[in-house]
Amino acid sequence: MDGGLRPMDAEQLREHAHKMVDFIADYYKSIENFPVLSQVEPGYLRGILPDSAPNHPESLEDIFNDVRAKILPGVTHWQSPNFFAYYPSNSSIAGFLGEMLSAGLNIVGFSWITSPAATELEMTVLDWLAKLLKLPDDFLSAGEGGGVIQGTASEAVLVVLLAARDKILRRVGKNALEKLVVYASDQTHSALQKACQIGGIHPENCRLLKTDSSINYALSPDVLGEAIAHDISNGLIPFFLCATVGTTSSTAVDPLLLLAKIAKSNGMWFHVDAAYAGSACICPEYRHHIDGVEEADSFNMNAHKWFLTNFDCSALWVKDRNALVQSLSTNPEFLKNKASQANMVVDYKDWQIPLGRRFRSLKLWMVLRLYGIENLQCYIRNHINLAKHFEGLVAQDPRFEVLSGKYILRFAVGAPLTEERHVTAAWKVLQEEASTLLGSL
Amino acid sequence: MDGGLRPMDAEQLREHAHKMVDFIADYYKSIENFPVLSQVEPGYLRGILPDSAPNHPESLEDIFNDVRAKILPGVTHWQSPNFFAYYPSNSSIAGFLGEMLSAGLNIVGFSWITSPAATELEMTVLDWLAKLLKLPDDFLSAGEGGGVIQGTASEAVLVVLLAARDKILRRVGKNALEKLVVYASDQTHSALQKACQIGGIHPENCRLLKTDSSINYALSPDVLGEAIAHDISNGLIPFFLCATVGTTSSTAVDPLLLLAKIAKSNGMWFHVDAAYAGSACICPEYRHHIDGVEEADSFNMNAHKWFLTNFDCSALWVKDRNALVQSLSTNPEFLKNKASQANMVVDYKDWQIPLGRRFRSLKLWMVLRLYGIENLQCYIRNHINLAKHFEGLVAQDPRFEVLSGKYILRFAVGAPLTEERHVTAAWKVLQEEASTLLGSL
Repeated sequence: MDGGLRPMDAEQLREHAHKMVDFIADYYKSIENFPVLSQVEPGYLRGILPDSAPNHPESLEDIFNDVRAKILPGVTHWQSPNFFAYYPSNSSIAGFLGEMLSAGLNIVGFSWITSPAATELEMTVLDWLAKLLKLPDDFLSAGEGGGVIQGTASEAVLVVLLAARDKILRRVGKNALEKLVVYASDQTHSALQKACQIGGIHPENCRLLKTDSSINYALSPDVLGEAIAHDISNGLIPFFLCATVGTTSSTAVDPLLLLAKIAKSNGMWFHVDAAYAGSACICPEYRHHIDGVEEADSFNMNAHKWFLTNFDCSALWVKDRNALVQSLSTNPEFLKNKASQANMVVDYKDWQIPLGRRFRSLKLWMVLRLYGIENLQCYIRNHINLAKHFEGLVAQDPRFEVLSGKYILRFAVGAPLTEERHVTAAWKVLQEEASTLLGSL
Repeated sequence: MDGGLRPMDAEQLREHAHKMVDFIADYYKSIENFPVLSQVEPGYLRGILPDSAPNHPESLEDIFNDVRAKILPGVTHWQSPNFFAYYPSNSSIAGFLGEMLSAGLNIVGFSWITSPAATELEMTVLDWLAKLLKLPDDFLSAGEGGGVIQGTASEAVLVVLLAARDKILRRVGKNALEKLVVYASDQTHSALQKACQIGGIHPENCRLLKTDSSINYALSPDVLGEAIAHDISNGLIPFFLCATVGTTSSTAVDPLLLLAKIAKSNGMWFHVDAAYAGSACICPEYRHHIDGVEEADSFNMNAHKWFLTNFDCSALWVKDRNALVQSLSTNPEFLKNKASQANMVVDYKDWQIPLGRRFRSLKLWMVLRLYGIENLQCYIRNHINLAKHFEGLVAQDPRFEVLSGKYILRFAVGAPLTEERHVTAAWKVLQEEASTLLGSL
């Protein structure tokens, strides 16, 4: 590649990456100028990009111009302080720096030997986070359990579902797959149903039990108990219960301790999904929402949602890491090495779906260190205060009421840049829309 | 977060990220000074990092010092020009810049509406790459098929296996799962076996057919035909064939066209895994290795191996995208939107295991544009020449012979920084080891 950009020349990297830093910093400076939701029409890009890759190199300036003119209009700005949709997906300076360093080293950490630091930092940092969340010691890496970074909560629930599936099938025989039953509330994230589809659990054996507003959409232990008893009497095999702390649609919190007892007495795997709300549990005053987690077999929270860690970084802890390994390990000749063979190390390839994995613990480590626990707690509290401010605004307008469930307006505070003025402005938009709507009735 | 690093302040990001750029550029300047393989002992990090996260913020300088002193010694340097293990995992300036931009925007592109540019750029860039590889038009996004970026080849083979599984089960009934049979050669990547485990295919129905050196470890159509006939006569249902172009251990190339005929006549899904060697097929003189791909149902190559695109970026093309969607879609209330409901757009969440996904097409787009086709072809040719140089060195020493299979020394050229001198130096090490070994006999 004479004369142009070389594949990996340190000085060319320096020069170009500095320009990219400025481009990204400028983006954040002007992020409020963009409409949060992209306004383009389906297929908008097809007509404005060439049909094929260029034969000859183009410049970084060409790329920047195209990003400005063609890509940014098609971006929905998740980092805008005016983003209140879905759930937060936090970027932060620390998370971004961690992503940079991870991409810079560009190692593939499937086995310990392929970069011991990647495996060991992940173990360390997930221990830190477990302690911060006051998870039971069984989830720490020093014992039989441990933490692992998955890409998403979908993968987290999938791998534990597979571990639970294979554990029960080892006991009852592999032809019993069609008898296995999974339980959760109807507020549970669709990732559970998808995990069942993938793992070959029959769709009609995935029980999404009805909830209602009288108990804030939480899964009722009585309803669960009845469903399990009914299934057992029909010769089916209950094996997996997924509880959620902070469901996506209704922010319902399932009663962990009561559910855990039912799961335990039926020999079922108990998974707790706190993907969204889990971050709040680093504050003592919110920790009670996961009381009962000590009885869970696995626990998940997404650091990439509301914990300032760039996507993707989904933290999963299990009490019995061997259950994961028994379900997900492979041991081909070309991956064999002394440390693995001697069982002296963790090989995270056996805790996850893919073989390859990025050095994702760097960004979580940097978030924890560059902010520190107290600032992270402040960050969560500030967002909760902003949500309360919004609730107060709603309460003053008799045309609205605050509730969950039914057809509702979801308003999710959690973008790093969000301040009170953004919440207030969003409320003004909602009021105007309401006026238009009610005026037209 | 008064006084310290704020979550996302544009000027603080600029200041800190510039420092990170310099840190990474300096790493590449000195990369040859590190031993390629990390020399640490298992557990090395536990004693040298604190037991818990800090209460108060630390500085980026603290982090850099720790990375230098504690992390880098535990890194196996995949980007070192002296790295010849496993397979290449290419970082490049373009790929790195793409990772930066992706982390900077930090969108979550599960549905089209969550950032139309993420979906549409991915479609466009995978069309570009398909054309560059001269894949059949059926794999382009304009028809019934299309391309998608998976994290790894493991996920690529898993999603097509699931699509094939559910397609056949819709025909023969879902209770036939235990009768389904998968075929591949014994040189096939272990990811296939893992996909079978995940998807509930019975392990004894995963046929890894024997190969040998007489046909360079390629899968024999005769052996395959016999195995299929035998299984059918036993009431089993062949449904999936995985061929490989460039197996990891032996670089075997399966005869695609002959295998495709057998798959087709038995109504089986035919997947071609060219994860490693696929990149070479952008050069006309190597394209013949994937002749027959026009008969495949799906095709995979990893841009993150040997195509200068930072990990992870595994390109998968399918001819029937509906087969993927039927197997992997979910449609919860909170993800509903006009464009998806009207079927006007691709929602990549339905083509993959996780829900969330990063804006990975940016880095592939930047690699293709910042280098251009001709330079990428030169890059591949240069590595192949270096491998030939190594072959020449081996041929001159009667103590070694060049072969594949048995217990062998694998020597994989493909790191971006590798030059002839690194190959020659590696050969010198091997010769010295041989002398020591033979001298001690």
